Amino acid sequence: MLPAPPAGETWIGDDAAVVVPPVGGLLLTADLVVAGVHADLGLVDLADFGWKAVAVNVSDIAAMGGRPAYALVSVAGPVGVDLPRLYEGIGAASDEYGCPVVGGDLSSSDCLVVSVAIVGDTGDRPPVLRSGALPGDAVFTTGPLGGSAAGLRLLREGLGAQAPELVSAYARPRARVAEGRAARAAGATAMVDVSDGLSADIRHLAEASGVGIVLDQVPVAGRATVEEALGGGEDYELIFSATNPGHVAASFAEAGLRQPIAIGHCTSDSLERRLGDGDLPLAGWEHEWRV
Amino acid sequence: MLPAPPAGETWIGDDAAVVVPPVGGLLLTADLVVAGVHADLGLVDLADFGWKAVAVNVSDIAAMGGRPAYALVSVAGPVGVDLPRLYEGIGAASDEYGCPVVGGDLSSSDCLVVSVAIVGDTGDRPPVLRSGALPGDAVFTTGPLGGSAAGLRLLREGLGAQAPELVSAYARPRARVAEGRAARAAGATAMVDVSDGLSADIRHLAEASGVGIVLDQVPVAGRATVEEALGGGEDYELIFSATNPGHVAASFAEAGLRQPIAIGHCTSDSLERRLGDGDLPLAGWEHEWRV
Repeated sequence: MLPAPPAGETWIGDDAAVVVPPVGGLLLTADLVVAGVHADLGLVDLADFGWKAVAVNVSDIAAMGGRPAYALVSVAGPVGVDLPRLYEGIGAASDEYGCPVVGGDLSSSDCLVVSVAIVGDTGDRPPVLRSGALPGDAVFTTGPLGGSAAGLRLLREGLGAQAPELVSAYARPRARVAEGRAARAAGATAMVDVSDGLSADIRHLAEASGVGIVLDQVPVAGRATVEEALGGGEDYELIFSATNPGHVAASFAEAGLRQPIAIGHCTSDSLERRLGDGDLPLAGWEHEWRV
Repeated sequence: MLPAPPAGETWIGDDAAVVVPPVGGLLLTADLVVAGVHADLGLVDLADFGWKAVAVNVSDIAAMGGRPAYALVSVAGPVGVDLPRLYEGIGAASDEYGCPVVGGDLSSSDCLVVSVAIVGDTGDRPPVLRSGALPGDAVFTTGPLGGSAAGLRLLREGLGAQAPELVSAYARPRARVAEGRAARAAGATAMVDVSDGLSADIRHLAEASGVGIVLDQVPVAGRATVEEALGGGEDYELIFSATNPGHVAASFAEAGLRQPIAIGHCTSDSLERRLGDGDLPLAGWEHEWRV
C-alpha cells in the first residue's frame, strides 16, 4: 500500500532505508499515538488514527518552518488489528504531505501504538525556533482554535453529523506546512504548533523566548467554546511571533493562504501572561477521556 | 540524563530537532521493542530494555556498513514505570554508539513500548544492501551465534549466573558497527544482521540477491545449541557475503577486529538452501515466550 522508491534509493525491505539527504539542515522529530489516549477508536476510524499519527509529526516540522521529507512508521498492536485500514490513513497523510514512508517496524503488543519519526529539511534558511520572540512582536495564529476538542465533544454526544468540519478537525487534523513556510519567509521570530492548547503552547513560546504575552482575543472555531480554544489542544494550527505584520500579510497573500489572525503581542515582562484584562488561564490538554 | 547539543544544533525542547546533516547518503531505520514481546522484564532490568531498543536500531545501520548519527526515542508506558532507569540504558547505548538522542516523545499507555528511529550516514561509499551477493561469494558471520537465545534459556532456568556472557548477549546485545564498516571496506556484496536467526536471515540475503546458499558450519556461541544458533535470533552479529576473502581478512585485521568466521558460500542455484549434506532447516525467532 506504500509507494516504491525512486532510482538510487532503497526504502522498505533492507535493514535501513537509503535516501538522498534533503537540502539544508536536517529537522528530526518523533511522536507516537496510543489508542485510547490520543484517539478513541470507538469514535474515529482506524484510518483516521493512522492519519493522525503522521499529521502530528508533520505538524512539528511545519512549526519549524520546514518541509517534511521522509517518514518512518512503527506499529505495535494486538493480533487482529485491521492493518490495511490503519495503513490506508498513514499512506493518505504521507501522500498529502509529500513525505513517503521509507521504513519502520511492526510488532505484536496488547496496546495499539503508532510511532512515527520524520526527517525534514530547513531549505535555504534557518528554521524558526520557539526561542526567538522579541518584546513588541505581534502574535498570530494560522486559524481559529478549539475545533478538535469540540469535535470530540460532539462525537461523544452522538452529534458528530451536525458539525463535520469540527469532527474532521479532531479525526483528521491538518498540519500547516505551507503556513509555517510563509511565516518563516515573513521573518517569524518564534513558532510552535497548538498541540496542548493555546494557553499552554503560547507559554512554551514565551518561556523559551523569555518574553511576556498579552492576548487580545481568542479566535474560536465554529461551535467550540473559549475553554476548548484555550485548553482543548490538538488543533495543530501554528502560533508565531513576528516583528513586521506587514511582511506576514504579504507573505501569506503571496502563498495564496488564508491570512493568519493577530491575537496579541509579546512584552518585555517575561512573567506576564495576560488575556484581555485578566490572567491567561492555565489550561492544557489532559487526555481527558482516559479512564 | 541526556547530553546537550553542540553550538548551532537544537535537540530536545523545540518542535523538532535541528541537526547538521551527516556525510553522504542518509540511512534511516526504526524499530520498536515491546515489554513482554522483545524482552521479559521479569528476567532483565529496565535499563537493559532501554539499551536493547537503541542497540537493535544501531545494528540495522551497522548492517548497511553505515555509522549511526542521531536517535529519536519515543516511549509509551504505564504510569509508574521507572523512566530514569529506562533512560539510563537508552543513554548508555546512545553514548556507546556515538548516537545522541536528539528528540522523541513520552506518552502514557497500558503497555511499555520503546520506539527508536536512527539517522545514520553511509560516509563516502555506497551502503551494503542485502541484494548484491554473487554466486561464488564467501559468506561470513562476525561472531558465533545462539548466545542470546541461550542466555534467555539460562535466565529462565535460574542459571544466569553460570554464563554471564550469554546473559549479556541477551540482555545487552552489541551492534557491530565497526565490523559492518570493515566488511564494507572489504567489498562486502551483501549484508544483514542476525535478528531472526541465521537460518531466516541468510534466507533474506539469499532471496534479495537471487543466489543459493551452502553453509559448511554453524558457529555456536558458548553453551548455546545448534538450534539456538540457527533459529534463536537476536544475536545482532552481521552476516555478509564477499568475493575476496583475503580482502576481508585484511580489512578486519587493519581495523583491529576479531576475524569474521567463514561459514559457507553463495551458489548460482537461487533455490538452494543447504547446510552440510542436508537442507538448511527453516527456523526463525518466534517471540517464543509470549503467552
